Amino acid sequence: MFAKILYPTDFSDVSKKALAYLRRLKDAGAKEIVILHVIDERKIEAIALYGTSGSFVFIEKMEQEARKEVIAIEGELKKCGFEARARIEMGIPLREILRVEEEEKVSLIVIGSHGKTNIKEMLMGSVSEKVVRRAKNPVLVIKR
Amino acid sequence: MFAKILYPTDFSDVSKKALAYLRRLKDAGAKEIVILHVIDERKIEAIALYGTSGSFVFIEKMEQEARKEVIAIEGELKKCGFEARARIEMGIPLREILRVEEEEKVSLIVIGSHGKTNIKEMLMGSVSEKVVRRAKNPVLVIKR
Repeated sequence: MFAKILYPTDFSDVSKKALAYLRRLKDAGAKEIVILHVIDERKIEAIALYGTSGSFVFIEKMEQEARKEVIAIEGELKKCGFEARARIEMGIPLREILRVEEEEKVSLIVIGSHGKTNIKEMLMGSVSEKVVRRAKNPVLVIKR
Repeated sequence: MFAKILYPTDFSDVSKKALAYLRRLKDAGAKEIVILHVIDERKIEAIALYGTSGSFVFIEKMEQEARKEVIAIEGELKKCGFEARARIEMGIPLREILRVEEEEKVSLIVIGSHGKTNIKEMLMGSVSEKVVRRAKNPVLVIKR
């Protein structure tokens, strides 16, 4: 029921808060955690379009930063006794989350209620709301 | 973290599916469960407005049915070792859920993604979506 969890994160504070809940779910049978960070392709496109010659370096740096963050989370969860595995995908966050949900055959999604890009979410609705609407599996939404 | 759970139910199939998740959360520290059924006051008003002389009997019967259902759930959860308590409130479901969340100082809400009134929800968005948006505590949404 809680055996394999998908944990999408954009490293926001509420995403990090969700980590504590993941740990607590261990006693309820959680074993495997797939950590997912999606690099928003629309952001990349915008940088590439309007950016200077340093854009490529910037994008590469962004990916490196993300890799460092997910590896840290992976290590932390492994220390708690989970089978943890990190994935970085490039795409539209909602779409990638639903794709990985299917691909990994998870049994639960644990997600923060709001991402870092707060203003956009206030206008468009948060990614987590859309995940709740469209996911096949139960979703635990952690609030700020 | 999962100690006191609010479980709003309209007795739909997905609400009942949520019960299995509640049971599983026991090992993660769930102790107390508040079962909440809201009798939608708008429905009552409509019945009273357009109903025949039998309306009052009908409303009373509806409440009795609800009471029977929540007592059955309460018994089931108590058998699993929970401190369970049922509440029936009259009002707007979203508003009552948020009010009881506050009043009972729960630490988690477990709710089915869709209610029985499916067509209305398809047009207006589901109660669970609104609960996710406005609750103060984490929300576990169980999908059909």
